[in-house]
Amino acid sequence: VIIIAERINSSRKSIAQAIEARDVEFIRSEATRQEDAGAHYIDVNAGSMVGKEIECLNWLVDTVQDVTDLPLCIDSPDPHVIKTILPKARATPMINSVTLDPDRLDVVLPLAADHNAKLIALCQSPDILAETADQKVELASKLVEKATIAGVPISNLYIDPLVYPLSTCPQSGEATLEAVERIMDMYPNVHTVCGLTNVSYGLPNRKLVNRTFLVACICRGLDATIMDPTDKQLYGAMKAATMVMGQDDYCMDFVTAHREGRLE
Amino acid sequence: VIIIAERINSSRKSIAQAIEARDVEFIRSEATRQEDAGAHYIDVNAGSMVGKEIECLNWLVDTVQDVTDLPLCIDSPDPHVIKTILPKARATPMINSVTLDPDRLDVVLPLAADHNAKLIALCQSPDILAETADQKVELASKLVEKATIAGVPISNLYIDPLVYPLSTCPQSGEATLEAVERIMDMYPNVHTVCGLTNVSYGLPNRKLVNRTFLVACICRGLDATIMDPTDKQLYGAMKAATMVMGQDDYCMDFVTAHREGRLE
Repeated sequence: VIIIAERINSSRKSIAQAIEARDVEFIRSEATRQEDAGAHYIDVNAGSMVGKEIECLNWLVDTVQDVTDLPLCIDSPDPHVIKTILPKARATPMINSVTLDPDRLDVVLPLAADHNAKLIALCQSPDILAETADQKVELASKLVEKATIAGVPISNLYIDPLVYPLSTCPQSGEATLEAVERIMDMYPNVHTVCGLTNVSYGLPNRKLVNRTFLVACICRGLDATIMDPTDKQLYGAMKAATMVMGQDDYCMDFVTAHREGRLE
Repeated sequence: VIIIAERINSSRKSIAQAIEARDVEFIRSEATRQEDAGAHYIDVNAGSMVGKEIECLNWLVDTVQDVTDLPLCIDSPDPHVIKTILPKARATPMINSVTLDPDRLDVVLPLAADHNAKLIALCQSPDILAETADQKVELASKLVEKATIAGVPISNLYIDPLVYPLSTCPQSGEATLEAVERIMDMYPNVHTVCGLTNVSYGLPNRKLVNRTFLVACICRGLDATIMDPTDKQLYGAMKAATMVMGQDDYCMDFVTAHREGRLE
């Protein structure tokens, strides 16, 4: 399971403060901690820095790339921010994210194609709110079609079926799981990914719900996740799920992670 | 998800001691704790009491039935022990367990039919060790066939595909999950159940592996489990998985369990 490490996001108060203060050491330490914990991509997001997102994200990218060779996941809802920042990425980056909204799609798809970037594509469109598995799969098919036409190879696509909060949409978990399974069946070589925080919105024990949902996703075929790899309970659930699914030869990853004190 | 509460088992040292000492209060308290924690059946097992299993199980049944109206799960590898003890059960009991071994099958099936008992049936035969999903499903089909011929309704059957330790059989998790899904698809009204301890044998962090496997099973269709409901992490994972699968209307069960301090 590919881990996109989510901690360097300005929606977190400590990160916003570090960005404001240009606290190089704090951001470096967040990057290093996540790399040490098993991250494959470091997500960088300065979306809450209104009016100065580009400047802030630019600084974040430099600061993170100073201490790690891991590829970045350039995270912004604004396609023009992505366009400006993307060329700075040294290793082949990931883009987070695109939707079927033409304003985003028409800018981001050519960028992804030109840079051979990985691309997180959300099952979200201006027309419908995709709550059922059928609707999610339909939007996924459209994303695959548009991406293919734009020259983005299907193996660079990370489709997120978008789970909605169980508290208001109790069938959304199962709909998302079914969508993961069907998307992975329909398109060999495509990837699926899921943000975990939506699912537990409005519920108690949110971390328990999030990690349970991650296990459920993995056991239906999900192969990437946006998560905090330093959360040992979440990391442990992910590693155990991968092993249960027979994707950990001789259980070596799990046993090693245990020995290194990374599971709880 | 139906919970068969597993704590009153003489393989646990404290239970063996309580049985030896005929410690009524200890056994009563174990039964009550499990009922309070959400058990649907109380498993009673005196299998390690060699030469006096019937006498010990008899006492366990009386002691547990003194404090709870929950149905019992009469647990013995010896079909003659089950035959002797079963008539003592007040509420419609469950039998744990039968396999395709004729010595067990020929005694236990008629008993289950006569008492309208629920029956845990293991995908185990004298001929083959069912390691693959295909083999597990084949044995499940034989169990369904034999049970039906003997007059046990399919809705009384709780089929356990039998997971083997991941440490020696790394594909056994996925094989078991696939078997659960296929058995539930093939036989509407049948139940599936899984013991959790096998899966983690020989691994570190066994409880993490067990509860991750339970979540995986539930999200592939499992509807019963043999577990310790007083284990709040395991119980929490089970409740969260049930909610994620859309089987908890308005998330009420989960929120209530949280309020009552039963989740971790």
